[in-house]
Amino acid sequence: MRKIPFLVVVSALISACGGSTNETPAESNEAQAMYVPEHEKGLLEKATRFFTALPSRAESTENPLTDEKIALGKTLYLDTRLSKDGNNSCNSCHGLETYGVDNKQFSEGDLGKNGDRNSPSVYNAALHFAQFWDGRAADVEEQAGMPILNPVEMNIPSEKFLVDRLKGIDTYKEMFKSAFPDDSDPVTYKNLRYAIAAFERTLITPSAFDDYLNGDENALDKDQKKGLYDFIEVGCITCHTGAGVGGNMFQKFGLYGDYWELTGSKVIDEGRFKVSGNEAEKYVFKAPSLRNIEMTSPYLHDGSVSDLSKVIRIMGKLQLNKDLSDEQVKSVLAFLKSLTGEIPSGANS
Amino acid sequence: MRKIPFLVVVSALISACGGSTNETPAESNEAQAMYVPEHEKGLLEKATRFFTALPSRAESTENPLTDEKIALGKTLYLDTRLSKDGNNSCNSCHGLETYGVDNKQFSEGDLGKNGDRNSPSVYNAALHFAQFWDGRAADVEEQAGMPILNPVEMNIPSEKFLVDRLKGIDTYKEMFKSAFPDDSDPVTYKNLRYAIAAFERTLITPSAFDDYLNGDENALDKDQKKGLYDFIEVGCITCHTGAGVGGNMFQKFGLYGDYWELTGSKVIDEGRFKVSGNEAEKYVFKAPSLRNIEMTSPYLHDGSVSDLSKVIRIMGKLQLNKDLSDEQVKSVLAFLKSLTGEIPSGANS
Repeated sequence: MRKIPFLVVVSALISACGGSTNETPAESNEAQAMYVPEHEKGLLEKATRFFTALPSRAESTENPLTDEKIALGKTLYLDTRLSKDGNNSCNSCHGLETYGVDNKQFSEGDLGKNGDRNSPSVYNAALHFAQFWDGRAADVEEQAGMPILNPVEMNIPSEKFLVDRLKGIDTYKEMFKSAFPDDSDPVTYKNLRYAIAAFERTLITPSAFDDYLNGDENALDKDQKKGLYDFIEVGCITCHTGAGVGGNMFQKFGLYGDYWELTGSKVIDEGRFKVSGNEAEKYVFKAPSLRNIEMTSPYLHDGSVSDLSKVIRIMGKLQLNKDLSDEQVKSVLAFLKSLTGEIPSGANS
Repeated sequence: MRKIPFLVVVSALISACGGSTNETPAESNEAQAMYVPEHEKGLLEKATRFFTALPSRAESTENPLTDEKIALGKTLYLDTRLSKDGNNSCNSCHGLETYGVDNKQFSEGDLGKNGDRNSPSVYNAALHFAQFWDGRAADVEEQAGMPILNPVEMNIPSEKFLVDRLKGIDTYKEMFKSAFPDDSDPVTYKNLRYAIAAFERTLITPSAFDDYLNGDENALDKDQKKGLYDFIEVGCITCHTGAGVGGNMFQKFGLYGDYWELTGSKVIDEGRFKVSGNEAEKYVFKAPSLRNIEMTSPYLHDGSVSDLSKVIRIMGKLQLNKDLSDEQVKSVLAFLKSLTGEIPSGANS
């Protein structure tokens, strides 16, 4: 899934065929070695202050990952019987083959009704410090059980309803037994949550940026490096840091202006205020992870903007009080594309 | 406690005595009315986007405030019998007459040992979104019980130990009974926590800034208004917002540099990482409330800096990547002084 830029391919083919370019590869490398732009000096070291490479899995002491649990979780994740009328699986809104989203503004639930927030990606979600746009679940173990019981989403009437349904399916009885071998009655709602979460903890998408963070300075091209530099200097790292490049904190959306004035949002979502009733949390959302952002349009909590360049410009204005130049937007966009990762082999087979 | 600047007093005396100044008060007012600096235009409206005036009390549905509960809470707050050897009350480290702090770098516990974090003010603390520097308690009800049992703080060996001690004191038996009239056994550790928290929910310190937010544009002088403008424009409001002017979010201390390089901290405190073990939360602390900051030195989680101007400069550099000018530092400092409030009459009598 990691893309090789067209020009690199052409250039490699020309070299392989003995075709000549203006410079020999040796000269080109030498010239490159001689000139290092000012902003690239110490950039990797600076980057490691803000970001860490993705782990291979999001381990949990509370929910140790076993092959059996992960396999059960994946089966559940893909099973439409987890919705009342059988129209939705977890995968319907968080498609494993489409970077963990459905690319719709709002997803359609079991009854054909739409939710009111954009479905966030399941990839790398286990690394977030809290789940949902408003962080109302602490971790994927808690989160996994909630859409199933939400009338607008999977519409299962009760935990018991689903447990009874699963107990009527022999495969599940066996899979739960091997995933939770110490339990005398392993088919429980809690175990279902833990199995789905265990699977989600394997959904990690390393990208060129991780190679860079792991020390390969050539993993990013010069535009991506300039973009990384701008991303840091402009101040995006105030909220987008860590392995997820976001997903670590809450922040008010619209510090320097009403967000709906720039996003054109038709409904004004008050964010965490709806959960906490705390005035200070009005319009406060989780700062989202930017992993795979190139592939997960439309953007923002309400999917109100589809153009990523526009989102970058809006964030500069609303969060940093800055009118980003066209060049800065292009540059940050180049960096963001380095966050497009590889979908793990176990996820979509 | 709200201070009247010396010059205003002198000027008022001169006026009252019929003494003449260069301008008559009428001329002065007129000149003022004619000239409004650019940065003051729309400033109040802008300020209300980020800040709200303090409520008179921090109400709680979970812990309704009654006079009896507040009175009990205050008595407990001031009682050194809440520490094992009787050397500390809550008030020892969070002095009601000294803006809720003890102005020491680290406070001394019941056994004479020092803690490793600067005691934050109890004033307005009930409004914070989480308690302690690392937010490890959700609210004052949870927080209130924790220092009592901490061996380095009040060193009470167990909840039962303290409950037994209080049950031996007739006044407390009566006070708990009237504070929790529906309980058959009212002297409990939970009720102690709730009573102290109820008292703390009344510890709110309105200041000139609240008068300003409530519509009195003359409540701030011109330097404070310029300071408020700078506080917003420079970007301090990325983390310091709401009624507390902070206390609403977690943020990494040292985004653009290692904090200890600028603060001279002798021990490197890893913040929330110590609680969560999450790499992304290394050096992450609660962005503190700036209410009464003028009076609560020394500053930062480790009390490593005593000079408020220096702290402003450090925050600009570390959090906003900006070298603030002397003028900006002075200006922000002027605004911060408008947050020095009135200690409520019930608190220190």
